[in-house]
Amino acid sequence: MNLANRSLVTIDDLSNGEIEALFSLADEMEDSINEQSGLCQGKIMASLFFEPSTRTRLSFEAGMLRLGGRVISAVDIGASSLAKGESVADMAKVVGSYADIIVIRHPWEGAARVVADYAGVPVINAGDGSHEHPTQTLCDLYTIRKERQTIKGLRIALWGDLKHGRTVHSLIYALARFGATILFCPGPGLEMPEHVLGRLNTEYKGDLKKCRNLNRELERKLFPIDAIYLTPSSPHQLAMLPDISIRVELKAGVDALYVTRLQKERQAPTVEEQELKKDYPVVDKKLLKGKEFKKTLVMHPLPRVDELTHEVDADPRSMYFKQAAYGMPVRMALLALLLGAKEVIIPEEEDSFVRKIDYPVYKRDSGVKCPNIKCVSNQETEVRYIKPEFKIVSREPLTLRCVYCDHELHPQFVASSEWHQRKLDSKKYHSADSHFARKINPENLIIFASEKEAQSRQFKPSSYVEHK
Amino acid sequence: MNLANRSLVTIDDLSNGEIEALFSLADEMEDSINEQSGLCQGKIMASLFFEPSTRTRLSFEAGMLRLGGRVISAVDIGASSLAKGESVADMAKVVGSYADIIVIRHPWEGAARVVADYAGVPVINAGDGSHEHPTQTLCDLYTIRKERQTIKGLRIALWGDLKHGRTVHSLIYALARFGATILFCPGPGLEMPEHVLGRLNTEYKGDLKKCRNLNRELERKLFPIDAIYLTPSSPHQLAMLPDISIRVELKAGVDALYVTRLQKERQAPTVEEQELKKDYPVVDKKLLKGKEFKKTLVMHPLPRVDELTHEVDADPRSMYFKQAAYGMPVRMALLALLLGAKEVIIPEEEDSFVRKIDYPVYKRDSGVKCPNIKCVSNQETEVRYIKPEFKIVSREPLTLRCVYCDHELHPQFVASSEWHQRKLDSKKYHSADSHFARKINPENLIIFASEKEAQSRQFKPSSYVEHK
Amino acid sequence: MNLANRSLVTIDDLSNGEIEALFSLADEMEDSINEQSGLCQGKIMASLFFEPSTRTRLSFEAGMLRLGGRVISAVDIGASSLAKGESVADMAKVVGSYADIIVIRHPWEGAARVVADYAGVPVINAGDGSHEHPTQTLCDLYTIRKERQTIKGLRIALWGDLKHGRTVHSLIYALARFGATILFCPGPGLEMPEHVLGRLNTEYKGDLKKCRNLNRELERKLFPIDAIYLTPSSPHQLAMLPDISIRVELKAGVDALYVTRLQKERQAPTVEEQELKKDYPVVDKKLLKGKEFKKTLVMHPLPRVDELTHEVDADPRSMYFKQAAYGMPVRMALLALLLGAKEVIIPEEEDSFVRKIDYPVYKRDSGVKCPNIKCVSNQETEVRYIKPEFKIVSREPLTLRCVYCDHELHPQFVASSEWHQRKLDSKKYHSADSHFARKINPENLIIFASEKEAQSRQFKPSSYVEHK
Repeated sequence: MNLANRSLVTIDDLSNGEIEALFSLADEMEDSINEQSGLCQGKIMASLFFEPSTRTRLSFEAGMLRLGGRVISAVDIGASSLAKGESVADMAKVVGSYADIIVIRHPWEGAARVVADYAGVPVINAGDGSHEHPTQTLCDLYTIRKERQTIKGLRIALWGDLKHGRTVHSLIYALARFGATILFCPGPGLEMPEHVLGRLNTEYKGDLKKCRNLNRELERKLFPIDAIYLTPSSPHQLAMLPDISIRVELKAGVDALYVTRLQKERQAPTVEEQELKKDYPVVDKKLLKGKEFKKTLVMHPLPRVDELTHEVDADPRSMYFKQAAYGMPVRMALLALLLGAKEVIIPEEEDSFVRKIDYPVYKRDSGVKCPNIKCVSNQETEVRYIKPEFKIVSREPLTLRCVYCDHELHPQFVASSEWHQRKLDSKKYHSADSHFARKINPENLIIFASEKEAQSRQFKPSSYVEHK
Repeated sequence: MNLANRSLVTIDDLSNGEIEALFSLADEMEDSINEQSGLCQGKIMASLFFEPSTRTRLSFEAGMLRLGGRVISAVDIGASSLAKGESVADMAKVVGSYADIIVIRHPWEGAARVVADYAGVPVINAGDGSHEHPTQTLCDLYTIRKERQTIKGLRIALWGDLKHGRTVHSLIYALARFGATILFCPGPGLEMPEHVLGRLNTEYKGDLKKCRNLNRELERKLFPIDAIYLTPSSPHQLAMLPDISIRVELKAGVDALYVTRLQKERQAPTVEEQELKKDYPVVDKKLLKGKEFKKTLVMHPLPRVDELTHEVDADPRSMYFKQAAYGMPVRMALLALLLGAKEVIIPEEEDSFVRKIDYPVYKRDSGVKCPNIKCVSNQETEVRYIKPEFKIVSREPLTLRCVYCDHELHPQFVASSEWHQRKLDSKKYHSADSHFARKINPENLIIFASEKEAQSRQFKPSSYVEHK
Repeated sequence: MNLANRSLVTIDDLSNGEIEALFSLADEMEDSINEQSGLCQGKIMASLFFEPSTRTRLSFEAGMLRLGGRVISAVDIGASSLAKGESVADMAKVVGSYADIIVIRHPWEGAARVVADYAGVPVINAGDGSHEHPTQTLCDLYTIRKERQTIKGLRIALWGDLKHGRTVHSLIYALARFGATILFCPGPGLEMPEHVLGRLNTEYKGDLKKCRNLNRELERKLFPIDAIYLTPSSPHQLAMLPDISIRVELKAGVDALYVTRLQKERQAPTVEEQELKKDYPVVDKKLLKGKEFKKTLVMHPLPRVDELTHEVDADPRSMYFKQAAYGMPVRMALLALLLGAKEVIIPEEEDSFVRKIDYPVYKRDSGVKCPNIKCVSNQETEVRYIKPEFKIVSREPLTLRCVYCDHELHPQFVASSEWHQRKLDSKKYHSADSHFARKINPENLIIFASEKEAQSRQFKPSSYVEHK
């Protein structure tokens, strides 16, 4: 199978089988990192970084150069073309006519999707705001697989800023897809956002349990767990007694502890940094003396600040520099595949619990907008050509997920295009959660941002409108 | 013929024949863009960008890499060596000792000329303030030629900010040289500067007519034309009735509409952006429905903002992304030629109306300075070694044109070195427009910035001084 | 001999013989600069510049490319990873896993040492604050050797900002090692720091004499000399009459005049720039008419501002653009050696006066800190893992030299670990300059930052404590 000319915008763009195949190629690359210079000769990679980065960019660039390719790069370009008011799409089209592949980092969530839509060449998302950072996830998974041979059934604890870290958002879906049990250990106020948990629950079908009201005694003994996600393939599902499940899981030990730093730069500027840092949980020698961490891989996407002490560096359990180093073979494998310089055999997928869902899409010219102000679809320069677009991921309650940034919204009022086409006086709007509304076919659905919008478009309330 | 070791500072550095030859080579490059990697092996291009740029820089760099060459680059260097107070000449000499060719963008007008004077290697101007951007002009001409086979006799409309856009200034002279008719459609207050129009008139000998007081009725029907330039090769010159000429021209349709964005960054900071944007003319689907635009190539140097709507992108007349893409073969051809990696046969020039004029040069140590505060010759770090230097482009009235930035000035008082050498009491100064002054040979001409300067240098007023 | 896998952090990392061998290789490189592209194929150099630079970075990058290698670079990264609070060591480890060699410039003094300690690949210091810039020194020495065949016995005058210029600090030790006589000609208030002069005196064993109170008449005749250093190999050592030595030296002429610019960016911000510039000594045509400058090589590390006039550029004695151009062959030779692509034969060293001193090292967890606030060991992000570490360069008075930035300090109070280990009531501290204290073996030495620290650690004053 051939991955040529595909883009990697979210980790969902690769199936489990494709990821496994990519990892096998990365193993090959790693074994002979200096003998790959014939693979991508004559190819040019553009690295476009609208946010600062050393690690990610340099590993992409070094990887491309080791493949024999060449690199053009634009770094910290916030000040240049953006200042001139150019759209992301225009930039993508132009750079796509110079380069064979584009690697992009951008502060707007969903920007990489737009670049992939317009560039005409393969695009790799190197981080779009708090949204996703799929190649980091590949490095993370690769590190775990390298050390534990599999990901399935492992217990992975996510630690620290689970709210803003794009790396953990990409990682969590991948872990769920590969059948890992996930323990959530956020800092105070930095819990995993509801929409991420919601998606885990609905799409990956495992059991998710908030642990807030657990047995106090247990809580004291353990490191602070906020929630637990058990894969459907796990033999013991979360039952009436989540305490027991957690005990069982932890007895077997944590396989990996994935530490993240406080993403200061994505905090509201009003929050005092000192306040945030004060209660941020720290991983140090003392914590790692706990029995449950005996064989734990200590991971971190880097850069780290104070949340993971330097004293751990010499510990054989520390994996974070390896993790960073694996960035090169993993990214080399990815570049070689997307550029068509290598083909891979995708193993038959037996992961029956992974289902790529084809949700119906909602893309009407209306008042419904993505609620995320950092979404690319809400930016002044982009609204000129981007129309809001959503996946309808649920009808009860009506849930739209932005195709760009994956944020979700729950509109209250809908109508049907079919009915109002018949005669004007049938232009009625309904409560989205009414029995009637749920029967409207997705392709006929008209969704309003507000009751006011419905009325301003000459719709009248039907009897299926609940006035609260 | 061999273009090796030449520099491209202004579009005038290439003859029409050389441009045609370069375009033939660009055609070759385009047909086999991935087979050129043997041409410039071992050569290093330095790209020095003192102003932000993605498009231009990336296309130069990608082009050089596709030629098998290598690239060193310094981007946004405003903050580095400039801050240390280094002169452009010093930087040029040093970088010239590391690289085989230099591409430079700089905010000071004429800076590329200085770099070419000192680097010791070929230099390409990638934009010097509001002055010139000759490789953009090459891309523009190449696009037109590609689509229409010739430029001669075409009707090209220039639209938008004709005052600050360096791209249109380079383009306009080239269009005149290739024998195109030019229609000027500026935004309010953004008319083509007088010195550009003046030069069109005097050097290219076509007919230029301001259209401000045209028939009102005509004006309503048409898109807003401010002036028209008819090539001398045109069968019907502008006569007593410019209205008729315009009607005739437009009946045949506009061949290309060259849209430019508002150059906010070159506006006086006091001008309100909102104010400027309000009346800026927009090219959209509606405008392009006009009969005169039926077969028009819609062009734009990019980046665009609001002056050209995204809805036009899908229109087959839209050329701007092609134009950007042509940047690569055109720049590859240019690099290959200047590096001596390719030779071309220059066709016999039959463009009799193009005359490269050898004006006498004025370069005395005196008070006469270029009036352009953005000229490289007026910068604190450069006055240490640059002496003002002018072409004497006219004696009636006396007109000096700065060799660096092409701005013009009209000094009022002159003297003759011949006469005052004979005896001291003949040290007299004269009105520049006196019969007597005009008879002074250029090599003997002494020009004063002011009457005061003349007097402070012990010259006395002659009878040929008019006291106004 | 093989220099592979070594780092160049200070000029002392290379012996005189190694420097000579490197210069021979640079000669080879210079003779066939375009035929070296097979040497470093497949190798990647990372250039990490935390401070702006064009010259140094571009010459390294161009050099690596001419060797057939490839380059990844991160420029002006102050704003990126530093802002995230990442340590220099972490960055070094990560980049070391992508690149085969690292070139680093950093504002913190000693930062290059830390990078070399952690990167796992060879590291080249391209300037660390005001500390050292060893490759500039190599270019300087190479230029002198190229023009004068030897450095030994030459008279080199250092001119301008001797206080802040890292280039002169690296240079001065190298000149002393190669046996040159050094004349110090600083601007007012910009004298060579005491610790540099002190080190010259103690380590290189030549004669150093301050000239402040010289014969007034002599002073008027000469350019302003502040101090003179005579190599021990010099036939006439500074005697009772330094005036005579200077006369003798100058009669023979100055072999090289090394001009430096005012390092504004390292001045206290309270000092008025105009004030500083006013009295800064200028090298111009007039000065160079002096008899002692008849055959002088005029050198400058560039960029220059006003301290060296452009009129000198055309003078055959001016060497500064050659000096910059030599940056390429010298850096190519260095890269090839450290990457193991070339081996050299190191000539037998006959420079008996050069002794690399193995000082005992002091590295206890205590209150003693480097006094230099710009030292890497004092930075918030680095104290997490760097322990202060010093060479004990003298016992009378007790002098510690920071292993990172070479700044020195003179602690007043010490104790012995041997004695207090025996019984608690012997935990006494002593004056560092007491007879008793000087007898403590270095490995037993406990050094206190202050008397207060000694007491807070439960030490009591011994009779060898002088209370001033």
